[in-house]
Amino acid sequence: MANQNIKPLKMGIIGVGVGATQIMPNMEEMPEIDLMAAADTNPLVREAFQNRFPEAHVFGSAEELCNDPEIEAVWVATPNALHCPHTVMVANSGKHVVSEKPMALNMHEAEAMVEAALANNVKLLCGHTLGFSPPVMEMRKIILSGELGPLKALNNWAFTDWMLQAREPDELDESLGGGVLYRQGPHQLDSLRLLGGGMVKTIRGTTGRWWPERNGVGYYSAFMEFEDGVTANVTNNGYGYSMTSDLTPWSDELGKGLILGYTHDERVEIREQLKSGSRDEFAAKHDLRIGSDHERRFWRETPSEIPPWKPANLGILVATCERGDLRQSRHGLYVYKDGGVEDRPLSITKYQAGREDLMELFNAVRNDAPVYHDGQWGMATLELITAIMESSLTGRDIQLSHQVPMPFEYGA
Amino acid sequence: MANQNIKPLKMGIIGVGVGATQIMPNMEEMPEIDLMAAADTNPLVREAFQNRFPEAHVFGSAEELCNDPEIEAVWVATPNALHCPHTVMVANSGKHVVSEKPMALNMHEAEAMVEAALANNVKLLCGHTLGFSPPVMEMRKIILSGELGPLKALNNWAFTDWMLQAREPDELDESLGGGVLYRQGPHQLDSLRLLGGGMVKTIRGTTGRWWPERNGVGYYSAFMEFEDGVTANVTNNGYGYSMTSDLTPWSDELGKGLILGYTHDERVEIREQLKSGSRDEFAAKHDLRIGSDHERRFWRETPSEIPPWKPANLGILVATCERGDLRQSRHGLYVYKDGGVEDRPLSITKYQAGREDLMELFNAVRNDAPVYHDGQWGMATLELITAIMESSLTGRDIQLSHQVPMPFEYGA
Repeated sequence: MANQNIKPLKMGIIGVGVGATQIMPNMEEMPEIDLMAAADTNPLVREAFQNRFPEAHVFGSAEELCNDPEIEAVWVATPNALHCPHTVMVANSGKHVVSEKPMALNMHEAEAMVEAALANNVKLLCGHTLGFSPPVMEMRKIILSGELGPLKALNNWAFTDWMLQAREPDELDESLGGGVLYRQGPHQLDSLRLLGGGMVKTIRGTTGRWWPERNGVGYYSAFMEFEDGVTANVTNNGYGYSMTSDLTPWSDELGKGLILGYTHDERVEIREQLKSGSRDEFAAKHDLRIGSDHERRFWRETPSEIPPWKPANLGILVATCERGDLRQSRHGLYVYKDGGVEDRPLSITKYQAGREDLMELFNAVRNDAPVYHDGQWGMATLELITAIMESSLTGRDIQLSHQVPMPFEYGA
Repeated sequence: MANQNIKPLKMGIIGVGVGATQIMPNMEEMPEIDLMAAADTNPLVREAFQNRFPEAHVFGSAEELCNDPEIEAVWVATPNALHCPHTVMVANSGKHVVSEKPMALNMHEAEAMVEAALANNVKLLCGHTLGFSPPVMEMRKIILSGELGPLKALNNWAFTDWMLQAREPDELDESLGGGVLYRQGPHQLDSLRLLGGGMVKTIRGTTGRWWPERNGVGYYSAFMEFEDGVTANVTNNGYGYSMTSDLTPWSDELGKGLILGYTHDERVEIREQLKSGSRDEFAAKHDLRIGSDHERRFWRETPSEIPPWKPANLGILVATCERGDLRQSRHGLYVYKDGGVEDRPLSITKYQAGREDLMELFNAVRNDAPVYHDGQWGMATLELITAIMESSLTGRDIQLSHQVPMPFEYGA
């Protein structure tokens, strides 16, 4: 389909925070998307957005944006506790909707979102997880191809400095969807479900909340078994001591930054500031928002060379098949087979956050293709999050009841 | 205590296999041990042993060795299915006894061993796990010191080529104690129990048996929770595709070999031979026995420089405390703290398999010190092995009932 035949989806964003700054440059690049509106409660953010997009409709509230009849679809990127009410509001206004990770705070909310989309006959997509990232997509493709025989086990370890990064209070408060399990769990759990086929049978896990100066969940770990006997072992430690990136020799290439983690020296300084209460979280957070130098360097500037893959929030993921393993390499995947190891390039060389998600939504709306990451898919991933919390409390494994499969055709 | 005052323990070995070749050079070095006897059913092995130790008593059966009144203590290094009968036989002959890992095939056997030692008033030590290795001992010391605050979580990943190494049929046959869970599980599970204090409450796990040409367990993975809420996540993949050693930049220094793993090219060749049935396992195994070039190079020759730590069968182990992490480094431990990361040397720079175990036995026999790794300790580790097997079958988590603590004083 040539570009001139594309009828772009007229999109709005509710909540122009740090998450949205990752998505916007990719929206702008896509002929399928016309980013025409945004809503945010912060006047500075609205001003920065209007400067960037002079013709866009800019609103101070989600309600106003939902009342704009021109908008066809909305990316909900508000704080986690608002994903449900805003998604329902968007659906009730008759617009298609993408919810950021995590879909919601609990299964009850998630169900309301699924029902609202159904009742209003709009598409709901649960987006922005690293399940959409090229290494994970490539792993799924190779697994489905049968090249290495059937999948047998998954192992996924992320040691990051998430707890040291600038945080709003709601990003730490579990009752508002804060902590690494709610906020980073979707990356790992969506990826594992995507590779394992989706149908998790049981999960046993724990959460850790260990710092007085950061009262939130900074650790989780879990063991899950899929219906076909494949198991997955996953750990996420956000406390920023040992780092998964210490295990990949290319981690320091082309610098660090948000998501990629701080340097060891920066972490020492931030820990001191957090302990003494002298860290200016507001300023640190503001430095990441739209219009900031960080936003320009990390999300808008085209790098002079393709940046290497780094473990970041997904961490190292090893997919073990009967006759081989897959693991992320510098620019592709290590494909370990009976015949030896190969560093195989990716079909898509650059991860553009939101791009795959938006293509899926576009194809669903314009071409009646399926939404693979629909409300039920998101609910199944959320079920793992809430089950890890429950397992941590009860000390027992949890049987799951809301799992759905990913159709074989997806990513094959 | 000066050497001349040491009254060495007169020791025999039952089963002079590859395991024993790792222990013997260290026995010889220790003034506390007088290796004076051995029993083996293989006449070639007996001959090699007699050549090495011309004055030793050499027997063709365990019974004969047990009837030798001069021997005070015996290291049982026979195939796993014989650990129980031989340990009981040694105890019944009134001698102290060290059982190799795994202690036994099941809890019933383990109980018989504990009872035999008790009834005969002899010491029983469950030895030869990497829980005795310097990095693990150093981790325990730092954890107990409180330097990093209380322990919170353990993560341990070993991807090895265990399934490619030369194997006797009994090393693969689960009913005889074969496979990575029985044979390598004790290294990881003993180490995790040592660091976590010993008292595991529940475990959920799986075993994998995926190759037609190697009909044995080549994979396990588990999640366990200790009584105090510390959790541990452990994986052992012996299929030799991706290797944990690929994650440590010094892995190729000073060569590879048994335990350290083959090179990628060697693995390709071995896999082909195993698949086609053309691999001479007997010859490959023989090359590792007493008198072989391998034995000389890897266990008897003093290296010109201290070899770097390599992940081998224990794998990478990260101990997470409230205010820091510990991970093995090239020659010590990375100690990650609030104030930064430090590469701290070990108190003991060289791992000598069996040395710590034998010192513990010697001190128990001669100085009435406690046997810390006694029958109950070994039983508790074996309980984790059998519980992982049960959990793999039932798909549920298992409550444990035979756990014992490691006294605080040990290794502090």
